[in-house]
Order: sequence, then C-alpha cells, then structure tokens
Amino acid sequence: MARYKLTICYDGGRYYGFQRQNGLPTVQAELERVLSTRFQENIIVQPSGRTDAGVHALNQVVHFDTEKQFDTSSFGYSINTMLPKDIAVNSCERVSDDFHARFDAKKKTYLYKVCLSKIHSPLKRLYYHICFYDLDIEKMKKACQFFIGEHDFRAFMLADEEKENTIRTIYDLHIDCEGEDLFIYVTGNGFLHNMVRIIAGTLIDVGRGRFAPEDIIQMIDSKRHVMTGKTLEACGLYLYSVEY
Amino acid sequence: MARYKLTICYDGGRYYGFQRQNGLPTVQAELERVLSTRFQENIIVQPSGRTDAGVHALNQVVHFDTEKQFDTSSFGYSINTMLPKDIAVNSCERVSDDFHARFDAKKKTYLYKVCLSKIHSPLKRLYYHICFYDLDIEKMKKACQFFIGEHDFRAFMLADEEKENTIRTIYDLHIDCEGEDLFIYVTGNGFLHNMVRIIAGTLIDVGRGRFAPEDIIQMIDSKRHVMTGKTLEACGLYLYSVEY
Repeated sequence: MARYKLTICYDGGRYYGFQRQNGLPTVQAELERVLSTRFQENIIVQPSGRTDAGVHALNQVVHFDTEKQFDTSSFGYSINTMLPKDIAVNSCERVSDDFHARFDAKKKTYLYKVCLSKIHSPLKRLYYHICFYDLDIEKMKKACQFFIGEHDFRAFMLADEEKENTIRTIYDLHIDCEGEDLFIYVTGNGFLHNMVRIIAGTLIDVGRGRFAPEDIIQMIDSKRHVMTGKTLEACGLYLYSVEY
Repeated sequence: MARYKLTICYDGGRYYGFQRQNGLPTVQAELERVLSTRFQENIIVQPSGRTDAGVHALNQVVHFDTEKQFDTSSFGYSINTMLPKDIAVNSCERVSDDFHARFDAKKKTYLYKVCLSKIHSPLKRLYYHICFYDLDIEKMKKACQFFIGEHDFRAFMLADEEKENTIRTIYDLHIDCEGEDLFIYVTGNGFLHNMVRIIAGTLIDVGRGRFAPEDIIQMIDSKRHVMTGKTLEACGLYLYSVEY
C-alpha cells in the first residue's frame, strides 16, 4: 500500500459540490469512478475539504491509497484523458503513509472573482460575480484588515448551522484589481460554511457604502449572521491552494 | 420609422451560430424574439456578419428598425433582463436611416484566445484553445507580418466552399502574451469562412516548428487549403469589434 497526493482543478458549475452524494453528479464521484477504473480496485479519495455546489477549484488536494505501481510524473496526462473535461489532475506525488489531505492542511487560500461591469457579462457569467455598483476599493481594502487574525467568525457562517468551534484564523485577506476585474484572496487555517462568500459579499457592501470598514469589528463581535453583508453566489468562488 | 444600432455581446457556446435557422437555437432568433416582444411588432435584425456555431462576440453590431419611441440610453439595462444570460446588449444608439450594419462595416477585429498549458484546463476549456505544445512566440510574431496587406486568402478558407472573391485586406495581425494566455488579434476589411481560425492554427503550427514564418508567403500563393495549418476550434474565437 502506498499513499498518493493529487492536486486537482475543476469547474464546479455542473456538480453538486465535491462530496459524493447518492446518484448526483459530484467531483468526488467522477474522480473515484475514473481512479477505480484506472487501478481496477475501489479507490476512495480524501479531500482537503469539501467545496459546495458550483464552487470551483484551481488546486484542490486529495489523497488516496493503492498497492498498484505507477509512474506519478505522467499520471496527470493519462488520467486526464479519462476524466470529464471539467476535472483535471494538475500533479501527482507519492507521500508518506500518514499524510492526510484534510488533517495535515495548514493553510487554505480561496479566491473570489468579481467583475465590475455596468452591463450583463455573458462571457464572465459562469466564473464571476457580476457587480453593477460603483465600489470604493480603498474602503474595501481598509475593511480587509479587520478580518485578519484569530476571531470567532460565527456571524460569517451559513445561518442556523450548528457548529461548536467557530474560531478561525485569517492570515491574509487582500484585493487585487486588474481592469474591471477584482480578485479577493483570503488565506486562513480553515473556513466555516459559506464564510468566504459572506466575507466577499460584506466587502462589496463596504465598497457600496452600506457599511463602513470599521463596522467589520462589530459584525464579528455580534456573532449574528444577520449583521453581515450578502452571501455571494458560488460561481465566483475558487479553492486556490492548500498548504501543508 | 427609425433605425437603431445595437452593440451586443454573447457566449456562442450553446448556439448554432448567429444566423436564424429553423428550430435551432441561434443568437439572432433569441434577439429577434426578445426585441419583437419588447416592441410588440416583428423585429428583424441585420448583423455586421454571421458568426459560426460556438463563436463568441464581445462587440457584434446589428441594426433594426422600429417606429416605437424609446430611451436608447437605458435600453440595454431593460432589454438585458429579457434576454438569456448568454446574450447582452452593450449599447444602443439611433443611426441614420441608411446605416447598414453589414455594408457599412469598414474594419472588423477578431480575437483568438489560446491558453498555453501543459495540462487540461477545466476553467478555460469553454473560452480558449488549450495548447499543450511549447511555442516559439517570436517566430509566430514574425509570421504575422506575412499576412498583412491585400492578398487572395483562398487557402485560408473552409475547404471546398465556393466563393468568387477571396481577396481580403488584413490591416493588422498581432499577438499579446499575458502569463500563459496568448491573444491573437486580427483586423481586416472582411474575413472568409473559418479564415481567422485557420490563421490562428497556422500561427500555432509556426510556433511548434511545423512551418517557418516565411512559409506563410507560399501558403497564401498556393491558394490551397491543404497547405495551411490546422483550423482551431470555435470556442477560442471572439468577434472583438466592428468599425464603421
């Protein structure tokens, strides 16, 4: 038995999230189906974490075990011809038997893509949140600072979800602008359900002037979801990288 | 009766091209259906030219006539809520009654997007040609020069198509690189069927070393389609702009 780490990319658009669900198309189901065919045994993959329905990944990490010998350097090329076109293996490497894609993940970075357009954007609609409002980017950048650090992010979680430990650490949150595109990068030790989409929506609301940058402090302290900004849609969200 | 010029954007992915075809989804059919509903009369649109199945447009231009009065400045906002999400009106303006979107077009610019990736690219697959080869970009840039000017481009046309006048003028052809993305822009007074996709494929073949930049001269002179490079797929092609 040997353990392997795969870095994978996917367009989450047509999937009901990463995790296997009876009868529904999911990234895990496709990946396990193809790996099981390839290795002629039942392969189970363990991801660094689930992604929700419609969420994309540039570098999701999973591990799996097999006794079969194979060349890891060419594995991506061959397995990608078997995978659906909206899932691809970026790289494959052998790891120690006790490596765990989920428990060993130290940091995760998510990217949220916003397109600032005054009109509908047919060519970006599948991969961006389209924002019709004028945004004060400087205020948004100022607001980013208040998220950084260890906080109880209960307010920035899907309402009514039960979760005991809602304390997370955000190491970095910053915004890059490229023309009409706005890229929000957030790095943390873990994220609550919908946390990145709520942070992105709250930053947009700051940019629109609905909140002041300093209001973030109170929002976090309130621990109440109703105090935050909008939860943005899944299609703009990308799992960008996982660090071990 | 007054004439209006619309600039429109579309994701051609699910359409059988621009032009109306009985029972098939086309951009023209959707646009005419929505405009006819909006104006409560039968609206026919005339484009600057057709685009093929799967080809996108950033700024296609069409004209149409109506007697109804309306506010052109807000027209895009309102009509876009009626259009499918993969078609949008960028702008609307009143033009003289003898303006013709097709016959008055002086220059058209197409953009062809290539992603240079060693692996499959799930998140770009719908909007780029994915090129797995190493390319010599300088050779491709050199090859561009040989296309510029007035030439008989019969070799750069869908094979076996009947067409009398295959002389076209290319005013500009250049390549922009941004990271792993390669953008081929070509401006001309008009283009033959598949011409841009064959030019793009031929440039890639020059980059791969299958042809030398100077071979373009012979290819054009040959007037034979078999001499050119590959015709690239529709999904990387965008009608970028039309000048009047």
